[in-house]
Amino acid sequence: MSLADSARFAHAMAELEKLDVRLRGADYLTTWERSLPEVRAILAAASCLASLHKRGLSAVCFSSGIGVSIFRDNSTRTRYSYSAALNLLGLEEYEVVESSSQMAHGETVRETANMVSFLTETIGIRDDVYLGKGEAFMREVAAAVEQGYRDGVLHQRPSVINLQSDVDHPTQSMADLAHLVDREGGLEELKSRKIAVTWAYSPSYGKPLSVPQGVLGLLTRLGCHVALAHPPGYELIPAVVARARAQARESGGSFEVGESMDDAFRGAHVVYPKSWAPHAIMKRRSALRDAGKTTELKELEREGLAQNARHQDWECTEQKMALTAGGQALYMHCLPADITGVSCPRGEVASTVFSRAAAATYRQASWKPFVIAAVILLTRCADPVKTLASLRDRKEPRA
Amino acid sequence: MSLADSARFAHAMAELEKLDVRLRGADYLTTWERSLPEVRAILAAASCLASLHKRGLSAVCFSSGIGVSIFRDNSTRTRYSYSAALNLLGLEEYEVVESSSQMAHGETVRETANMVSFLTETIGIRDDVYLGKGEAFMREVAAAVEQGYRDGVLHQRPSVINLQSDVDHPTQSMADLAHLVDREGGLEELKSRKIAVTWAYSPSYGKPLSVPQGVLGLLTRLGCHVALAHPPGYELIPAVVARARAQARESGGSFEVGESMDDAFRGAHVVYPKSWAPHAIMKRRSALRDAGKTTELKELEREGLAQNARHQDWECTEQKMALTAGGQALYMHCLPADITGVSCPRGEVASTVFSRAAAATYRQASWKPFVIAAVILLTRCADPVKTLASLRDRKEPRA
Amino acid sequence: MSLADSARFAHAMAELEKLDVRLRGADYLTTWERSLPEVRAILAAASCLASLHKRGLSAVCFSSGIGVSIFRDNSTRTRYSYSAALNLLGLEEYEVVESSSQMAHGETVRETANMVSFLTETIGIRDDVYLGKGEAFMREVAAAVEQGYRDGVLHQRPSVINLQSDVDHPTQSMADLAHLVDREGGLEELKSRKIAVTWAYSPSYGKPLSVPQGVLGLLTRLGCHVALAHPPGYELIPAVVARARAQARESGGSFEVGESMDDAFRGAHVVYPKSWAPHAIMKRRSALRDAGKTTELKELEREGLAQNARHQDWECTEQKMALTAGGQALYMHCLPADITGVSCPRGEVASTVFSRAAAATYRQASWKPFVIAAVILLTRCADPVKTLASLRDRKEPRA
Repeated sequence: MSLADSARFAHAMAELEKLDVRLRGADYLTTWERSLPEVRAILAAASCLASLHKRGLSAVCFSSGIGVSIFRDNSTRTRYSYSAALNLLGLEEYEVVESSSQMAHGETVRETANMVSFLTETIGIRDDVYLGKGEAFMREVAAAVEQGYRDGVLHQRPSVINLQSDVDHPTQSMADLAHLVDREGGLEELKSRKIAVTWAYSPSYGKPLSVPQGVLGLLTRLGCHVALAHPPGYELIPAVVARARAQARESGGSFEVGESMDDAFRGAHVVYPKSWAPHAIMKRRSALRDAGKTTELKELEREGLAQNARHQDWECTEQKMALTAGGQALYMHCLPADITGVSCPRGEVASTVFSRAAAATYRQASWKPFVIAAVILLTRCADPVKTLASLRDRKEPRA
Repeated sequence: MSLADSARFAHAMAELEKLDVRLRGADYLTTWERSLPEVRAILAAASCLASLHKRGLSAVCFSSGIGVSIFRDNSTRTRYSYSAALNLLGLEEYEVVESSSQMAHGETVRETANMVSFLTETIGIRDDVYLGKGEAFMREVAAAVEQGYRDGVLHQRPSVINLQSDVDHPTQSMADLAHLVDREGGLEELKSRKIAVTWAYSPSYGKPLSVPQGVLGLLTRLGCHVALAHPPGYELIPAVVARARAQARESGGSFEVGESMDDAFRGAHVVYPKSWAPHAIMKRRSALRDAGKTTELKELEREGLAQNARHQDWECTEQKMALTAGGQALYMHCLPADITGVSCPRGEVASTVFSRAAAATYRQASWKPFVIAAVILLTRCADPVKTLASLRDRKEPRA
Repeated sequence: MSLADSARFAHAMAELEKLDVRLRGADYLTTWERSLPEVRAILAAASCLASLHKRGLSAVCFSSGIGVSIFRDNSTRTRYSYSAALNLLGLEEYEVVESSSQMAHGETVRETANMVSFLTETIGIRDDVYLGKGEAFMREVAAAVEQGYRDGVLHQRPSVINLQSDVDHPTQSMADLAHLVDREGGLEELKSRKIAVTWAYSPSYGKPLSVPQGVLGLLTRLGCHVALAHPPGYELIPAVVARARAQARESGGSFEVGESMDDAFRGAHVVYPKSWAPHAIMKRRSALRDAGKTTELKELEREGLAQNARHQDWECTEQKMALTAGGQALYMHCLPADITGVSCPRGEVASTVFSRAAAATYRQASWKPFVIAAVILLTRCADPVKTLASLRDRKEPRA
């Protein structure tokens, strides 16, 4: 970290005060629904909380309260980060383990959402597998607790936090941004940067599109020069790409889409090579699953893997890294990466490239608990600036 | 809620002081083992805790401590409610996940009960599937920790809390009662009320008898006019029905058992139509399971479903609701309800009836965390009145 | 407990102050890596914490923080003890549930270890099934977080705590020791004692060697007379036995290995009869599993059970207990014991022997949460003596 920790805290607090955002009671489903001042506020609050933690100080500002989690897909990093973020602030996780029948459709989502919200501050949801489903589910939960609050069922309306949907992964992209800002010294410094967000080969099937979509949806607002590259057939959700294009225009940055990993890497200051599933296949998968077509789903998986296998040259090798600005681009990944010769015979990244970058990707990941805690703080506290100031002033050691 | 929240708190506190009950160290296995003052005290304490929560105030009165849970059946609502109630007071849940071999019989229950009680305040148990088993298991656990305490194994004796047995569901029935009191304005107001507790059709097998049994076992003590109705073959446990009859006589209320849903609904102020399994089939199921007869258990399930299917007219329809007092009876359900055309083709309740009642049933459910927290407070604190008074006076915000 | 509780606290505090050990930041993987003063400090701190708990006083000294757990084998007692110990101090458990692919080898262990350590104080691991694997895994995790801390990934380096490896079970052996000290009045009093650690028959396969190894590795340092006995073929890890021999020499105690349960029991003050798998079979099992040989693993299990069955006379019967000092030896077991006629037709111990000893074995187990909490306190707090003194002085009731 480039600044001394208490200076970093003071700097972030000053920023937060100036921004004067009001997020109390809001959900956090996509970064693009949040204004730029709100995005900056999340960054600043995350920085304050990380600084407190690094100095061994308590950030507990709740005496009790539940953070519900609903994980409809596996998770190691985000699950830990959400749980640890809740604990950091004094809240406690309650995981809803869905049986096959519950929380399926209509009334039942409304009901279950209310049933786990009586003493709840936040509802964190991961639902990223089926295109067109995850974000819709989150909005359904948000509408259910909104209505529950209006009906006098709930004493307060919990905030719904997207822990990865089919569309965005806004705690990941904000952790990515915090890492970039930490490295570059500030948001302003990102403006002149070229950032390559590219597809990469993986021998696995069905990786969500939400990580690259989240990165595009956020970084194009900040004046960066974003180069997206993927093989034909690996398009992202059109509306997300259109939004990225419009945002880049508005922010004074640029956004280009190409089909060459080399072109995207050339001169880049930052590279984010990461596998995802083809959009068309993900859409068919969603439809086949709705129709309950198990055999066809298996066949589709074979098709998807075969399609991937035609693009094994999309690997972040030493040769490709040498094309970047000074051969020194920052390598980013949301982890776990498919590392050639380590986690698979051939993957997203060469082992020497990853080895050099590993510690940096871990630091990138280290922002996630603080970003999530910042979102909770901003969406749940009446006066987050005052709360942070009192945490700073009371100087209570964690241990 | 009909009273302003702090007035409600003051009212409930006054009640609690007057009642002067001593529940410290007690278990909470059935409502009928608790005196009426104790029942009133649980209601009053639940009301205090709900009022604190609604006003955003902390109810934390433990600095640490474990609330063990043992769920031998699925649970969404009660599981959340127990976990959230513990958190509300400053305790933390520890869930015992039973392997096939552990906690089976004799020595092993005694041993495991002690092994998870060293730092434990409460042991919440759901064991509702097999008639004759659940409550017996809870009493075995209670005896084990009692002996552990006497043997110097445990520093303190945890309270065992029934989170649904084969016989009673005393946190549900108390939440039901809190909801009724909240709606009617007080316990006295219930005396003139007719309450219909009826079977209802469901296409599912083996629903426990403990919800209707719990409601009968509690409401007949309060001077209400309780009408139980079910098709022939759906009798409840005879001892529970006999107790209900005796209690109604003693309380100045009434209790009648019939075989017509219409008769029960006619003129009722409250209806509680809910499916349960036939007693005879549940008894055979318990015996077959003890004998390990898997094929016969499957056959019994078919038999039970076929028996249910003969009573599809036991549905809470608009026509049936029109029979109630002013056509305006309060519809109650412990949730989830089998809603015709929503969760199943034909079920316990018509979708229009449920839609109108949904928010009210959610409010009914919203009492459960506070009822459980009240039971914990009363069974674990040396002086619950003093504890609640200090929570009121310290006015510590939750966030 | 032989001393009054506050006197016990004062005594243990005085000991702790005198010892003046510095364990902050250390791991706890085997007792033999810890100096004798460190072992005494853990005992003393456990005693202080137990005394506080018994008097109903809070021992919370963390405002927040995560204790990660990784259980690669079933656990009831240790799992509860770890979770409850964390809660006792104000920390919260986060359980890593491993999918088949994660945390396998190399980079991935390093990565996952870092990913669950950002806000983590301790990492408790049970990995006891495969010889040569468990402790190695723990050391890999420890090295990973050490590097993560040096790389600036982690704000602090969590302590790794062995909750049972293939080699040692150091929270068990310290609980065993605390129980012995509690009974005998002090560590000095153990010097003249004969302690029989013997194999016992069990109809189950693959029980770890780490419990007897842990007991030998600890008690031989304290001047006791330790008699190990097992049938031929049930040797423990040679290095552990060699260390026990050397330690006994150095401590002025004795250590003998025999093949007669009777000889070991004769004149013993303490007996610890407990089943474990043959070393040779465990080594073959580990190799077969590495080679993925499922059929051979099944065959090996049959072989192991058949080998066990030849030694059904290794049962702790009344006759064998009668051989001990005054026929009154303290029976110890880490639980659960295989009790003849109770948990199996023929097992480690006769039911009458176990019945008499049951409460004492439960008291033995009751030390484990306090031992684990003591290890956490000593490895995480800057000045544990000061922390304990402030817990004593603030006299905050738990409830």
